[in-house]
Amino acid sequence: MKTVFERLVRFSDPSGKIFYGEAPKEADDEKTLVGRVVPVYDGENPWDLKGHAGGRRSAEIAKVLVPIPSAPLIYGIGLNFKSHLAETSFPVLSHPTVFTKPCPGALTDPYSPVYVSKECQRMMDYEGELAFVIGQDCKNVGTKEEGEGMVMGYTAGNDVSCRYWQAPERCGGQHGYAKGMDGFAPLGPVLVSPAALLGAQEGERERKSITLTTTVNGEERQRVEGVLEDLLFGVGELVVYLSRGTTLRKGTVVMTGTPGGVAAFMKPEPKWLEDGDVVEVRIGGIGTVRNEHVFED
Amino acid sequence: MKTVFERLVRFSDPSGKIFYGEAPKEADDEKTLVGRVVPVYDGENPWDLKGHAGGRRSAEIAKVLVPIPSAPLIYGIGLNFKSHLAETSFPVLSHPTVFTKPCPGALTDPYSPVYVSKECQRMMDYEGELAFVIGQDCKNVGTKEEGEGMVMGYTAGNDVSCRYWQAPERCGGQHGYAKGMDGFAPLGPVLVSPAALLGAQEGERERKSITLTTTVNGEERQRVEGVLEDLLFGVGELVVYLSRGTTLRKGTVVMTGTPGGVAAFMKPEPKWLEDGDVVEVRIGGIGTVRNEHVFED
Repeated sequence: MKTVFERLVRFSDPSGKIFYGEAPKEADDEKTLVGRVVPVYDGENPWDLKGHAGGRRSAEIAKVLVPIPSAPLIYGIGLNFKSHLAETSFPVLSHPTVFTKPCPGALTDPYSPVYVSKECQRMMDYEGELAFVIGQDCKNVGTKEEGEGMVMGYTAGNDVSCRYWQAPERCGGQHGYAKGMDGFAPLGPVLVSPAALLGAQEGERERKSITLTTTVNGEERQRVEGVLEDLLFGVGELVVYLSRGTTLRKGTVVMTGTPGGVAAFMKPEPKWLEDGDVVEVRIGGIGTVRNEHVFED
Repeated sequence: MKTVFERLVRFSDPSGKIFYGEAPKEADDEKTLVGRVVPVYDGENPWDLKGHAGGRRSAEIAKVLVPIPSAPLIYGIGLNFKSHLAETSFPVLSHPTVFTKPCPGALTDPYSPVYVSKECQRMMDYEGELAFVIGQDCKNVGTKEEGEGMVMGYTAGNDVSCRYWQAPERCGGQHGYAKGMDGFAPLGPVLVSPAALLGAQEGERERKSITLTTTVNGEERQRVEGVLEDLLFGVGELVVYLSRGTTLRKGTVVMTGTPGGVAAFMKPEPKWLEDGDVVEVRIGGIGTVRNEHVFED
């Protein structure tokens, strides 16, 4: 869908006041965003922002916030990357595997710590993911093209996962519990409009290839070049699926699934995150989410 | 927790205006509630109602509404009745099996139709359940006694389930998708305070036994006498489990799971609901939820 923004950044200024602003194209990480003075929009939510304030009003970014203040719900998609499926030996499914994370509890700002409950038994994992935000209420969306049209923007995220609680014998095979704890959905740093990310202007057929990487303390763990091509169920298909008989409300976040390289499947044994580890998810054209994981006593 | 109400009814009056009122003890079904003039409370939500309007202000019930206007989320618990587990031959789990239904989409008033998408392939089932509502934000609740103390009230519900989409090969074993469609959570007709339902006044040890029945077009399908005794994971334990590392927000609904007798496991073959079937869930001390199931073309 059409948006007033191209690269929406939600932030607080040095006085703590919160704004929506337009981030320059080259500002896609904490050090290139913080300190910058950007034009700001009027409005409470990303879907009802009023006209670009292009120069009229501006504010200084002191802290980058998660792009949406809350969401009706976050949907996560499991096993949606061909390269991730290859490492899990799970069967390929005929439909998406869907779980949820509660809001606003699960949301974390892009450069804030993820606090990990001690009840997670230190079996923590990362899942670097492309996420999208629904821009208008919709139900029974008929085609994937219409589905793509409901998307107001894309962002980067980490589907933080506690594998201890995700073990089937503990959760009855339901993924959501292990992924829905407070702070387990860092998103950001900006929400990029479909047109700005995909170059899908009218008449333009070819889409940009999007690269996703995840690092832990700087060590690369996940890499996909051509995220959209590697998705088993694409963005539009996911909207069709999720809206079947179900009203998807604007602001709903969908995390599209993670590629291969998660800690749980490393050989010869899992490489769980440790206290203080920094997980960085970077998506080309969007930017970088970087969160220290702080283990609570 | 302590509440200003004993039997909270949310309703619209003949002009369509919405109220919270106190239902008399014997009013627990549509025909005993509708037409009655009841004292009403001031306030927007069940957890912030002000003083009993005992006689000062009153209104006439024209339509009984779901007791909470929305909820942050509805949690459902799978396989939580000893008698249901017996019929499924699933293994007994060490922890609750948790899924979610989105809000407010899934909520349905206690006597309104449940509209069923044609994409449900007519494989529709009922699950009569005791539900409870969290009355205050809480996290990392330590004991089941503290967990019970977070409950502001109990109500009856139907965890409407489409078994077509719940088949593991379609949903990857995630229960939520098949249970989260619009209208798949009828709740009501009243929210009964813990003290009023359980007689748990101070010093009073023995709890009332609660009977749950589910009928389809008047034919009994589910019956449990002593619901609380038959739960594998009790109310307090569920609050402890759901709040682990996770903020449970006031207004959150938990549906505690269903006993034996669902359509899917009937012998010699499933007895799926048909267009126009009326499902009635009755819980002693709370009342009756009765919903016609209307299949969309």
